[in-house]
Amino acid sequence: MKEFEKLQGTIKYSFKNIELLRQALTHRSYLNEHPDFKLGHNERLEFLGDAVLEIIVTEHLFNSFPQTPEGDLTDWRASLVNAKMLASIAKDLMIEENLYLSRGEEKDDNSKARQYILANAMEALIGAIYLDGGLEGAKTFIHNFVISHLEHILANHLYLDPKSRFQEKAQELTGITPHYKVISENGPDHEKIFEVGLYLNEDLIAIGRGSSKQEAQVAAAAQGLINKEWK
Amino acid sequence: MKEFEKLQGTIKYSFKNIELLRQALTHRSYLNEHPDFKLGHNERLEFLGDAVLEIIVTEHLFNSFPQTPEGDLTDWRASLVNAKMLASIAKDLMIEENLYLSRGEEKDDNSKARQYILANAMEALIGAIYLDGGLEGAKTFIHNFVISHLEHILANHLYLDPKSRFQEKAQELTGITPHYKVISENGPDHEKIFEVGLYLNEDLIAIGRGSSKQEAQVAAAAQGLINKEWK
Repeated sequence: MKEFEKLQGTIKYSFKNIELLRQALTHRSYLNEHPDFKLGHNERLEFLGDAVLEIIVTEHLFNSFPQTPEGDLTDWRASLVNAKMLASIAKDLMIEENLYLSRGEEKDDNSKARQYILANAMEALIGAIYLDGGLEGAKTFIHNFVISHLEHILANHLYLDPKSRFQEKAQELTGITPHYKVISENGPDHEKIFEVGLYLNEDLIAIGRGSSKQEAQVAAAAQGLINKEWK
Repeated sequence: MKEFEKLQGTIKYSFKNIELLRQALTHRSYLNEHPDFKLGHNERLEFLGDAVLEIIVTEHLFNSFPQTPEGDLTDWRASLVNAKMLASIAKDLMIEENLYLSRGEEKDDNSKARQYILANAMEALIGAIYLDGGLEGAKTFIHNFVISHLEHILANHLYLDPKSRFQEKAQELTGITPHYKVISENGPDHEKIFEVGLYLNEDLIAIGRGSSKQEAQVAAAAQGLINKEWK
């Protein structure tokens, strides 16, 4: 039995219909092992919650920044509403411990797949709150746990991709424009691995790997921000 | 001067603040030629309207089809909310005649660019109605002019891509599974043009062109639906 009382304290929302909460936490893999489970999985709630999240974040940005061009608002929104961010919020809210998963999925707790399961459960939870508590309920939840990250994102320019962020920091703190060099290319054409170095002048700051030069550069920049403690 | 009275009759919505309507119809190109125009262009309204359209269509599908899996609902939504569909609705609503465009953009009335301008103006109009008339105003407009197309889309399986639709129709009406053959490949590697034939048994039904085999197949299937009058 999941501890729904504690969970509802953490998310600061009490369900009138607790089955909606249970359904939001039910991954499709669980149903394979429990064919007699009465509720469906959470994918329809996710479909709804995704759109609810989008309109509430969009309206908040539109109203709060009346002079900001649409392109910037779009970048800021993408930095709030993405799988990585939503999965991290889900972990903070103890959603992970409360998921209904198959035993196979339960073991695999550090994968990309888990990140998507968590992000989708967050959206499903928003859908469930919307059905249970209307737009106002969903708005309060999203302000408390999603939009609350906006200040930090804006202050630290986290809406920029790693390459732009590294370049910005490098120019601001060292006056040097970073550059990238391919160190090695391995493997056959359709599955090449590129290794790229990120440099400030002659100093190698970080190495990134990826299946394209661009991907390797982004990985190098992300590692560079960590190595330089410019996070 | 644009005929806003007639336009408001067509869209079945009367603005309290007519400047919102004017802004929704203002493309960024117009501002270059009219630097003294007081309102901004419509991109922020489009940012808002896109999310309003999404939640209203999503909620309608969620509520109207309680047994339908999320994947199907996503396909149906994509067939209602896409640039081609929104541009076609915009034309029906005489939005094209009422756009504020630069003279250059005005001439170029049959391009892909015009399709995006029209689709974006539709979204901006939805944003403007939302600001002017709230969620209820936007809901009425979206039901009248967007969701009203759903029945036709579902009845004719227009949510399927052309290849799936051609295959479905061919199997239903002829019992034959269509196949595709590359007829020619021309041009250098980075800008190849593929020409693909769509066949039922030995009969060539249609030819499609594209920058990949997949793109050429889709074009052939779309043409095949027209040639067979299976639209």
